[in-house]
Amino acid sequence: MAGVAPTPLLKDELDIVIPTIRNLDFLEMWRPFFEQYHLIIVQDGDPSKTINVPKGFDYELYNRNDINRILGPKASCISFKDSACRCFGYMVSKKKYIYTIDDDCFVAKDPSGKDINALEQHIKNLLCPSTPFFFNTLYDPYRDGADFVRGYPFSLRHGTPTAVSHGLWLNIPDYDAPTQLVKPLERNSRFVDAVLTIPKGTLFPMCGMNLAFDRELIGPAMYFGLMGDGQPIGRYDDMWAGWCVKVICDHLGLGVKTGLPYIWHSKASNPFVNLKKEYKGIFWQEEIIPFFQSATLSKDCTSVQQCYIELSKQVRDKLAKVDPYFQKLADAMVTWIEAWDELNPSQKVESEAPNGSSK
Amino acid sequence: MAGVAPTPLLKDELDIVIPTIRNLDFLEMWRPFFEQYHLIIVQDGDPSKTINVPKGFDYELYNRNDINRILGPKASCISFKDSACRCFGYMVSKKKYIYTIDDDCFVAKDPSGKDINALEQHIKNLLCPSTPFFFNTLYDPYRDGADFVRGYPFSLRHGTPTAVSHGLWLNIPDYDAPTQLVKPLERNSRFVDAVLTIPKGTLFPMCGMNLAFDRELIGPAMYFGLMGDGQPIGRYDDMWAGWCVKVICDHLGLGVKTGLPYIWHSKASNPFVNLKKEYKGIFWQEEIIPFFQSATLSKDCTSVQQCYIELSKQVRDKLAKVDPYFQKLADAMVTWIEAWDELNPSQKVESEAPNGSSK
Repeated sequence: MAGVAPTPLLKDELDIVIPTIRNLDFLEMWRPFFEQYHLIIVQDGDPSKTINVPKGFDYELYNRNDINRILGPKASCISFKDSACRCFGYMVSKKKYIYTIDDDCFVAKDPSGKDINALEQHIKNLLCPSTPFFFNTLYDPYRDGADFVRGYPFSLRHGTPTAVSHGLWLNIPDYDAPTQLVKPLERNSRFVDAVLTIPKGTLFPMCGMNLAFDRELIGPAMYFGLMGDGQPIGRYDDMWAGWCVKVICDHLGLGVKTGLPYIWHSKASNPFVNLKKEYKGIFWQEEIIPFFQSATLSKDCTSVQQCYIELSKQVRDKLAKVDPYFQKLADAMVTWIEAWDELNPSQKVESEAPNGSSK
Repeated sequence: MAGVAPTPLLKDELDIVIPTIRNLDFLEMWRPFFEQYHLIIVQDGDPSKTINVPKGFDYELYNRNDINRILGPKASCISFKDSACRCFGYMVSKKKYIYTIDDDCFVAKDPSGKDINALEQHIKNLLCPSTPFFFNTLYDPYRDGADFVRGYPFSLRHGTPTAVSHGLWLNIPDYDAPTQLVKPLERNSRFVDAVLTIPKGTLFPMCGMNLAFDRELIGPAMYFGLMGDGQPIGRYDDMWAGWCVKVICDHLGLGVKTGLPYIWHSKASNPFVNLKKEYKGIFWQEEIIPFFQSATLSKDCTSVQQCYIELSKQVRDKLAKVDPYFQKLADAMVTWIEAWDELNPSQKVESEAPNGSSK
């Protein structure tokens, strides 16, 4: 067997989605871990530019012209000149699982100096249950060497399906522009050897840099919103998706995990540019987060699509007063679901079935 | 300065409470960390037995005769032949902070091999704020080298006062009897270098083995219930306290932290004995936990005492149907508060002041 790489987990059931504006040399470092998977590359910005992908990778690449051709007028829901465009990759994938990573993220090392196979850890996270209804003080009870502690109700120990695995970052932490400006030299060197479920009812800031999810369970809610060209904000694409996803996971009884795996985030983005993109989000989020914290979905919403449409109505009703942008965003949420269902006609039925609405 | 130990943090503001039935030789290992603090030893079981305390420690010791003498008829709320008796120590303390530890817990080592000063870490946890309203993915944002991540609302970054610091255990994990029986050889060897706030609205299994709290903020809710001699259950003393404490902390806007520090838990208790103590709790908790998950306190409850009395009424109304024991427990909760207020007359007023009810 020497020289023959073993078949990795979920090889034919997972796509790696990468948004980029540059050559993908960063893939060289990921070759041992990514080479057997299929990549979906979403090229942002000028479609006439050629993106080089290192040899040996199996990929499909979409630029703006492709997005416009495939979605027609519905392409308006996909952001331009912003990494939010990555969610187009989620939509065109035909796989059950997605891993998305930024092109400035490299392989991190664990405390023993070993390269971390981030994708393998995400798959482990997604394939074992979550525990959102009660906190386990020894973290993920399903990990080797751990379990549920004394006092954990036995009726909750089967857990609930995991929809999202949120990974972290060594070196450059995911800070907002004000924090970047105040602490330009801060680096994250703390390796926390834990995976944990974010409890039901608790929101979190979901970062899209190192993120995996079960497309069948939560895909239609992974919309990264309207950012970048022609929009009043940027750098809130993943946050928007995270708020929506968490509310819908809580409603549907799905789990969200955070913690391991770490990637090595190589380069801080420009804090001045970031501030310009973020500043509206920084004050808007003071109203958006309470909105999501109190959002409830009707019992009739049994599929992710139904939940997402219901949420879009609440965004229109309650956030349009914050800024007219949210009216436009609510419309785009509806367009996104229409486009998703058009490209995933079979999944539309499937996604409703587990909740019993179609039987 | 050679040979002169520096004054430790909060030396005159913290008591260490230890329930025990044996000689306290375990203190030898803790000498460098505990020797400058005051100890409150609560002797369980036969009061005629002499407990040896290693020389050099400053302590007061209470046996059952002392408890009966000090509390009179109200001594009925203090458990006998169960480590739940430790809460008597919380009541007689005159300090702002309490650290409680079991006498089978030793000094653990961090991954670099250094002895962990558990008490120092608890004090750090208690002295810096908690963040129960939104999850920070890089864990405690107030630790060196960490901060709030992108997307964390700025209005929540001041945090909220920390009432409880819940530490963990290396070696023997805190498992229930069924898990002990199924996994007799499992040891916890994973050092997770994190402290995190348990989000608002989420309950957790609070273990009393390695626990610190702010007595002024939450002391009157730290009642360890009726366990042991003459009672139908044991090993649920800390769980009971944890459920009550978390509901009250959530109501009053106080924080609960868990994670670091670790202690070394030396010896698993007998799983057969534990099963006998626990088995009623194991099925009762299936109803008790949903009760606490849905418990809400009236806005008029602005002191811990008021909250606790209100909770005792709900226990009487809603849990007595599970077993008549809860009627007795509800009564004991009231007796506990009466005894607390009797021994802490000044604190009664103080504890109401921060919420503005006395001005």
